[in-house]
Amino acid sequence: MQQVQSSEARAKASLAKAAARQMAVLASDVKDRALHAMADALEANKARILEANALDVDQAKARGITGALIDRLTLNEQRVRDMAEGLRQVAALPDPVGEVLRGWVRPNGMRVSKVRVPLGVVGIIYEARPNVTVDAAGLCLKAGNAVVLRGGSEAIRSNTAIAEVISDAAQAAGLPHGAINLIESTDRSAAVEMMQLHGLIDVLIPRGGAGLIRSVVENAKVPVIETGTGNCHIFVAASADLDTAEALLINAKTQRPGVCNAVETLLVHEAVAEEFLPRAAQALTDRGVTLRGCERARQIVPAMEPATEEDWATEYLDLILAVRVVPSFDAAVEHISRYGTGHSEAIVTRDYREAERFTQCVDAAAVYVNASTRFTDGGQFGFGAEIGISTQKLHARGPMGLDELTTVKYVVHGDGHIRQ
Amino acid sequence: MQQVQSSEARAKASLAKAAARQMAVLASDVKDRALHAMADALEANKARILEANALDVDQAKARGITGALIDRLTLNEQRVRDMAEGLRQVAALPDPVGEVLRGWVRPNGMRVSKVRVPLGVVGIIYEARPNVTVDAAGLCLKAGNAVVLRGGSEAIRSNTAIAEVISDAAQAAGLPHGAINLIESTDRSAAVEMMQLHGLIDVLIPRGGAGLIRSVVENAKVPVIETGTGNCHIFVAASADLDTAEALLINAKTQRPGVCNAVETLLVHEAVAEEFLPRAAQALTDRGVTLRGCERARQIVPAMEPATEEDWATEYLDLILAVRVVPSFDAAVEHISRYGTGHSEAIVTRDYREAERFTQCVDAAAVYVNASTRFTDGGQFGFGAEIGISTQKLHARGPMGLDELTTVKYVVHGDGHIRQ
Repeated sequence: MQQVQSSEARAKASLAKAAARQMAVLASDVKDRALHAMADALEANKARILEANALDVDQAKARGITGALIDRLTLNEQRVRDMAEGLRQVAALPDPVGEVLRGWVRPNGMRVSKVRVPLGVVGIIYEARPNVTVDAAGLCLKAGNAVVLRGGSEAIRSNTAIAEVISDAAQAAGLPHGAINLIESTDRSAAVEMMQLHGLIDVLIPRGGAGLIRSVVENAKVPVIETGTGNCHIFVAASADLDTAEALLINAKTQRPGVCNAVETLLVHEAVAEEFLPRAAQALTDRGVTLRGCERARQIVPAMEPATEEDWATEYLDLILAVRVVPSFDAAVEHISRYGTGHSEAIVTRDYREAERFTQCVDAAAVYVNASTRFTDGGQFGFGAEIGISTQKLHARGPMGLDELTTVKYVVHGDGHIRQ
Repeated sequence: MQQVQSSEARAKASLAKAAARQMAVLASDVKDRALHAMADALEANKARILEANALDVDQAKARGITGALIDRLTLNEQRVRDMAEGLRQVAALPDPVGEVLRGWVRPNGMRVSKVRVPLGVVGIIYEARPNVTVDAAGLCLKAGNAVVLRGGSEAIRSNTAIAEVISDAAQAAGLPHGAINLIESTDRSAAVEMMQLHGLIDVLIPRGGAGLIRSVVENAKVPVIETGTGNCHIFVAASADLDTAEALLINAKTQRPGVCNAVETLLVHEAVAEEFLPRAAQALTDRGVTLRGCERARQIVPAMEPATEEDWATEYLDLILAVRVVPSFDAAVEHISRYGTGHSEAIVTRDYREAERFTQCVDAAAVYVNASTRFTDGGQFGFGAEIGISTQKLHARGPMGLDELTTVKYVVHGDGHIRQ
């Protein structure tokens, strides 16, 4: 059994590697036609997909799964249409492959170009959202990559149906066999083997909760891009406009609390804490937010629960906000450096030098002055689509669009040049 | 004992992490003054460094080490001057930090900039070359990073002396304490712990032989950039100018056979094999090269040894060349795809379409038309200096200069912008 599962990951990655060589030289119009064909096929086969999905949902419910997980797992006609629409939007984006990033001539006359090329084989390990099967495949294909997908076991029937539909459509439209691969084994060993396929998979992108991402980082021997964890802060500086501060805070905490760019800790300069905290606390509790404050914050707003050391390090992904009063700008930066995950950090200030220093001193994928942390997103940044938000520093940082699914190649044109 | 060694790697990486925050905001002129101070200190302390090095060399010889390894380990006055000169050259390069790679305004008026920033803490694991201690530290510091160095045990006295000299000089010139760190434990467990310091070390770059690199890739939980292995090919196409082909081949095989961008296999189209192979074989054997040929090649030049399957996959790093006659352009590309390591690949051709197809179809860091593979090098590409040659696709590919020792940050300027 173990043996059979092991060979599935390796066999599909090998297929993907062969397909990747052909994908790399496909013209944009072939790829775009395939993306449209995949979109059309999803809509044409929605009955089959929804039927498979209903079985997944029934089984998940029978196993006692409830709430947000069931919601993420469930498809309906609208969601199938949304997946199809997503593919058409990706087709409309410019093709990153072939872009010449730099070109120059060496003193000996040799011409060097740095050209954008596909990564090759991209592996995606994800959880119960069947739409990732479509979104990830679409972005990877557009950037000229082959893809190996491994979704959560709860969604296996949905994913199998979706992958078959889009893979058949892609192939009929001219993409190579093996461009889209789904690992059908739901055994953990298949995922672990995927992480070991050095030389076959060029990069692995885990999409899901902190546990999944940690497991991939721990086990992978292929290069990984870490995504997702966001313990984000808003620092209300002494010179902040307090109306702005309140609006940003409400937006960053309550507009969609379950996502990685939502704010988790409010830092307030002590000079404005007495004025700002009561009104902010009122506005937030009115919107159902629970506050957990440091001792100083609780002196000002006694209704707050006490915050522990653990609160500073927690990504709640919920309507909870930690609150700390800090004595200085430097103390705020120090707190962020200590507890932040390098995702999105914001300052609210009217002071020019503070704004400049914050953007320079805070080490995160996105640093904001007087704007909500909720903007860290491929769509909001104008990338058209995103495969995830990288919280590591290698290769990609922040929202990852099509460019981040490519690498480079140096193309050198000589005329018999030899090295002296 | 294990405990003590363990804490050395962690303690030094923690120091480096604290230093990295200060390094990130240092002005170029402070960093450049420090690089000059380090260079001056190396020259002023050369007696002490050479004394430490002599002890390393004596001990290595006593342990029976000979040849190239002793040569790489040995320092002399000229080599110390060269290290100092290297630092001064790095000081003269433009500072990559702060470069705005892109900047745009969103429809809501929010301004987004993509800015180059340091990686943070760079770990380097290397072998017996003491000059890497200086070269790697210089490049990392110039790009605003702190560095944790772990050299081979054979060079420990040399490395300790060098690191102390340059670290003291750097600090006196205004760099933070902890910017340069050398792991002094020569126990393997210290290197292994370095590979596990996820969250403290941002990237690990192994520099050395294939065994070292494999071990780092296998064991590391921090992101790694793979460097070095080059099984490079020259394909002499049917339309090749044979004088050019011979000159490139001799250059790529013999100018410096022990390096990763030297050619290891010659592929010859069958249409020119009978004309080209006898003259190429003569020219190469005259220069001390041993040839190992496929059956067809040996029919043309019977003096060749027979090549086995293993030869196609071998990076000789020596005066040995594998030779294969191929029936077509596609067969050459197929051979390269199967056996190449994605380093440097060259075609010799006069045919426009072949040249274009080769640069598109061959998946390698550097692809050459009518030029020697020996040019894959930071200096030769005009980068001023290099920390290694990446053979992976993530983050950096090909020669890595200062730019590749940086990451990016998105800086967003708003005016109370909230997400709708």
